[in-house]
Amino acid sequence: MESIDSESYVMMKNYKIEIQYKGTRYQGWQKQESSSNTIQGKLEDILSKMCGEKISVHGSGRTDAGVHAYAQIANFHCDTLMPKEQIMEYMNRYLPEDIAVRRIEEMHDRFHSRLNAAAKSYHYRIHNSNIADVFTREYTWQVPDDLDIEKMRKATEYLCGTHDFKAFTSARKGNKSTVRTITSIQIEKNGDEICMTYNGNGFLYHMIRILTGTLVEVGKGVIEPAEVIRICDSKQRDQAGPLAPAHGLALLHVLYK
Amino acid sequence: MESIDSESYVMMKNYKIEIQYKGTRYQGWQKQESSSNTIQGKLEDILSKMCGEKISVHGSGRTDAGVHAYAQIANFHCDTLMPKEQIMEYMNRYLPEDIAVRRIEEMHDRFHSRLNAAAKSYHYRIHNSNIADVFTREYTWQVPDDLDIEKMRKATEYLCGTHDFKAFTSARKGNKSTVRTITSIQIEKNGDEICMTYNGNGFLYHMIRILTGTLVEVGKGVIEPAEVIRICDSKQRDQAGPLAPAHGLALLHVLYK
Repeated sequence: MESIDSESYVMMKNYKIEIQYKGTRYQGWQKQESSSNTIQGKLEDILSKMCGEKISVHGSGRTDAGVHAYAQIANFHCDTLMPKEQIMEYMNRYLPEDIAVRRIEEMHDRFHSRLNAAAKSYHYRIHNSNIADVFTREYTWQVPDDLDIEKMRKATEYLCGTHDFKAFTSARKGNKSTVRTITSIQIEKNGDEICMTYNGNGFLYHMIRILTGTLVEVGKGVIEPAEVIRICDSKQRDQAGPLAPAHGLALLHVLYK
Repeated sequence: MESIDSESYVMMKNYKIEIQYKGTRYQGWQKQESSSNTIQGKLEDILSKMCGEKISVHGSGRTDAGVHAYAQIANFHCDTLMPKEQIMEYMNRYLPEDIAVRRIEEMHDRFHSRLNAAAKSYHYRIHNSNIADVFTREYTWQVPDDLDIEKMRKATEYLCGTHDFKAFTSARKGNKSTVRTITSIQIEKNGDEICMTYNGNGFLYHMIRILTGTLVEVGKGVIEPAEVIRICDSKQRDQAGPLAPAHGLALLHVLYK
């Protein structure tokens, strides 16, 4: 028995996949007992059917309900003789139209999409107008108020770097560190659209959405740019701005060393 | 009675509106007996309810089922004391999320959105990849083949100008002229996306979709660029390329003198 087990272990391959999804219809990335309507759940169901055994898919991180991804990264181990192109084709054939596997790669056995992730990029899109846009409404937060972009940019200068971002997370109390490093926040305005790109080594639960909600308050003139230092230092969630809606957020890419 | 009639006529105002819509869920612009699911139908229902009488909305032109519009133009006459901003607000309150009125203007009594239109612009978007894109799939035609953009551009040179475009329409036989003027066709490639912008004084039924289907055949090498002259001269629909799918097409804007 032992020799069979070790042999089947040798056959096991570790695949890294790049996944694009429109989050609108889903309860987020992570599989839940109460809902089968998650990205991870959809991927595991298809792979488990393909392999005839239970397959676990590990994502680089969770995305909230409604959040989109241009290039989420995940990995899974499976024992199959199918070439990788065929696995990707099989997955795309059975995935719904708003989820697509765009790349597949065989990795060394120890590769883990979350533990090995070195950096991540997200963008948050704002439709800055009092008139709705039917084409971008599923991807943008509509903010009708005048926003002072220069003030918002000034505030990002205080946020970049290594800080304890406890004031900018909805996470419950715990012993886990809330220190993170933001390498850059770019804010670009193009017509009615404001696009905020966040780069960092990792982000806490709700962190980008609360940072965005806070920066929009800065843009409105409710919070002065330098006040974000005090907010950050307070480590109190109630000092920061509101949680921006999920549908404006998208995971852009995950960097590995 | 006569004096009341003429007085009410004086009250009648002519409004020009700019409408944006995502065509995916609709049976096109034009109201149909068998389907209430048209853009014109939705607009007329809301305005008729608002005014308490039957209102007719005249579009600058029909768009097919599934075709989108960034700035369709329409006009309607109505007898109301509401300021125009309030009419627009009322319409947007009751319109579904994939139709929006973005501008309203009071025009002179004789203005007609179709009869006064001097030129129109459309774009047709192609997703040129064998991998689906979940974000653009409702707005692009996915063509996996290699396309030679330079050949496509060469072919557009023969199409621009004033020609009888009978070979490029699905319209039934009739006495109406099939002569139109195309002022320009621009083809731009950006990553996986090819965007074709058509400008002209007017377009026949299915004309842009058949031109696009033909240009894609040129891009594939099935039709040589100069062959489009022969196709045009033949005035035979079966000589041209296939009808490209509706969902890649969008009306960009309508020009008035």
